[in-house]
Amino acid sequence: MIRAKIEQAIEVLKELNIDAWLTFIRESSAAHDPCIDVTIGGNVTWQSAFIITQSGERLAIVGSLDQAAHETLGHFPEIIPYVKGIKQPFLDTLQRLDPASIAINYSVNDVMADGLTHGQFLVLQDLLADTPYRDRLVSSDEIVAKLRSRKLEPELQRITKACEETVDLFAQMNDHIKTGMTEKQIAAVMVEIMEKKGLERAWDADHCPAVFTGPESAGAHAGPTDRKMEPGHLMNVDFGMRFEGYCSDLQRTWYCLKPGETAPPAIVQKAFDGVRDAIRKAGEFIKPGVRGMDVDAVARNHLTSLGFDEYPHALGHQIGREAHDGAGLLCPEWERYGDRPYLKVEAGQCYTLEPRAIVPEYGVATMEEIIVVTPDGCRYLSEPQTEIMLIKS
Amino acid sequence: MIRAKIEQAIEVLKELNIDAWLTFIRESSAAHDPCIDVTIGGNVTWQSAFIITQSGERLAIVGSLDQAAHETLGHFPEIIPYVKGIKQPFLDTLQRLDPASIAINYSVNDVMADGLTHGQFLVLQDLLADTPYRDRLVSSDEIVAKLRSRKLEPELQRITKACEETVDLFAQMNDHIKTGMTEKQIAAVMVEIMEKKGLERAWDADHCPAVFTGPESAGAHAGPTDRKMEPGHLMNVDFGMRFEGYCSDLQRTWYCLKPGETAPPAIVQKAFDGVRDAIRKAGEFIKPGVRGMDVDAVARNHLTSLGFDEYPHALGHQIGREAHDGAGLLCPEWERYGDRPYLKVEAGQCYTLEPRAIVPEYGVATMEEIIVVTPDGCRYLSEPQTEIMLIKS
Repeated sequence: MIRAKIEQAIEVLKELNIDAWLTFIRESSAAHDPCIDVTIGGNVTWQSAFIITQSGERLAIVGSLDQAAHETLGHFPEIIPYVKGIKQPFLDTLQRLDPASIAINYSVNDVMADGLTHGQFLVLQDLLADTPYRDRLVSSDEIVAKLRSRKLEPELQRITKACEETVDLFAQMNDHIKTGMTEKQIAAVMVEIMEKKGLERAWDADHCPAVFTGPESAGAHAGPTDRKMEPGHLMNVDFGMRFEGYCSDLQRTWYCLKPGETAPPAIVQKAFDGVRDAIRKAGEFIKPGVRGMDVDAVARNHLTSLGFDEYPHALGHQIGREAHDGAGLLCPEWERYGDRPYLKVEAGQCYTLEPRAIVPEYGVATMEEIIVVTPDGCRYLSEPQTEIMLIKS
Repeated sequence: MIRAKIEQAIEVLKELNIDAWLTFIRESSAAHDPCIDVTIGGNVTWQSAFIITQSGERLAIVGSLDQAAHETLGHFPEIIPYVKGIKQPFLDTLQRLDPASIAINYSVNDVMADGLTHGQFLVLQDLLADTPYRDRLVSSDEIVAKLRSRKLEPELQRITKACEETVDLFAQMNDHIKTGMTEKQIAAVMVEIMEKKGLERAWDADHCPAVFTGPESAGAHAGPTDRKMEPGHLMNVDFGMRFEGYCSDLQRTWYCLKPGETAPPAIVQKAFDGVRDAIRKAGEFIKPGVRGMDVDAVARNHLTSLGFDEYPHALGHQIGREAHDGAGLLCPEWERYGDRPYLKVEAGQCYTLEPRAIVPEYGVATMEEIIVVTPDGCRYLSEPQTEIMLIKS
């Protein structure tokens, strides 16, 4: 997959007419540039420069003791080792390639393109001080956004498989969860099923899975608590797993019936249907060329038109190697989203769709599905939840 | 441990007379500032500011959906959530605290103090554009170096335990390794023992453990190969495990006897003794106030005086939460080490001592031990290897 993404990167460099892309890293297991996972495939100890050029060169300048590991990986056919310092081999290499532009991994808006630390930026400035290359540095954010966004077929297959396994896990949960269980107990059921599948979590263990039951539960991104699922609670989970390095990230909603109830109360059903339809409408609207904020607005307006509060987050984020995969975002024009509301949707991107509706005294109705953008619309990679799942008390 | 390190950080701020220390992070599971593990204890999704002040305040400004998780952690008693953007609460907070200096996590030399990405640095510059605080930013590298270096007693206990378990693992290996096994098979033996202990690796799985047998094996930091351990080979391993978040990182050397041999050849014994004595001499020399380069020189000169080549790396690095724990380094004056050769050793620091001697036609003799610097010298946290281990053919 690394090799295929490097080939794709070369095509992106041509498209953007950027001569060279430099990933400049050191001690990268402790300070990990997210680009390493896409185009390098292994860490380094000493100051290192991995360069991919528009004309197809792939070369790496690394500390001598890092050489063997990267030769074994084999993604960079030219590896130049050094013992005492990177400066001379690095400058010699730049002089030989003489790139008119050099993209480096920093970005104000996109975390996935922002792996270069500020200290490393200063090191690079210093190395290039007396060369023409210092003024040829540009941000790699467009390269990284296109490279991560444009999913190759094998990447789509892995995300789809991660989604299928997660939807299957949700189905299996129904045999195990019962009124009176705590959020932590429900999470433990999910982890047990995950471990039987031999899969790993898609994000930090402390809130993967996240489980929320009843009114005024902890906000999203909080971990499960000792709160018990009681009759009359809306209960929802947020969970993702990694399949061969690619993530799912899905949410599902249950309602815990009160004695005598055979269906949820009208307001709960209205919230569930509202969220389901907000997802459906956003999915019908999304296509290449529309802005992220306009997709968000479709779902957001549907829910506010039904009388629910605005959800306090974006409708959806991209997904891939990371659950939050950077760049394009289906989000409102809020300060915290920078320029991301205005980015246009492109074919090949995978987004989550995850609106929510809060139902006072009951809890939160929320589903999260994953789609891939196609040339004329989108296709679901997860099988959407269409009916609220019921738990008998 | 987080709470204890925050208290220590407040003392360090007083000592350095820095008013406030700002850890400025977003999507921190993908782009992870190493300071998070020391003083925060959990990740965030949205742009966040964690501030510790000399006068003991601990406050965090986080996206509303990250609030609950950090309240649960409880390390920052004042948590200010926001929905749309961090700017206003962040500026209000700075105005209220009005710090004369604000340390941020960037460093040219120390990876552990260099978690702020360049894009994030630009975001911060922009947020502070019309305020006096932009000119009050300083590097946190001295704070981070002191905080990570000065091990508290519970930290020393964890490192010691990680060392003990690793030394025990090396001893157990002797019941399992045999002439003819490949580097990969030897590594598999080690992993099996590790898993029985219920411990995790201290660094990347691809070269933890690292196993090298015979002459011209792959360099350090390479993974084990299909090369077989044969009579006449020097074999060495480099391995570390994590105990309650703290690392070991140790190396050991074996010699594989040829038929008829009962002891290693003189040159192999000379190399082993040279490495062992180089470690002992460096351990006798090290004490607070000496420069890292001078400690390195003791070991380096001992081995070159015996006729061995200079080892192509530093004598030792600090260890703690990470196997390579940043700042002070026992290294020669080489370009790649920046200002680190000149840093002075301080009491409470934990260093590895890991010189090596190459023996042409046989392989590499190398040991790695771990010491803690005491007020007047050092104490070993690992039980040093004193005799070469022999494998019968």
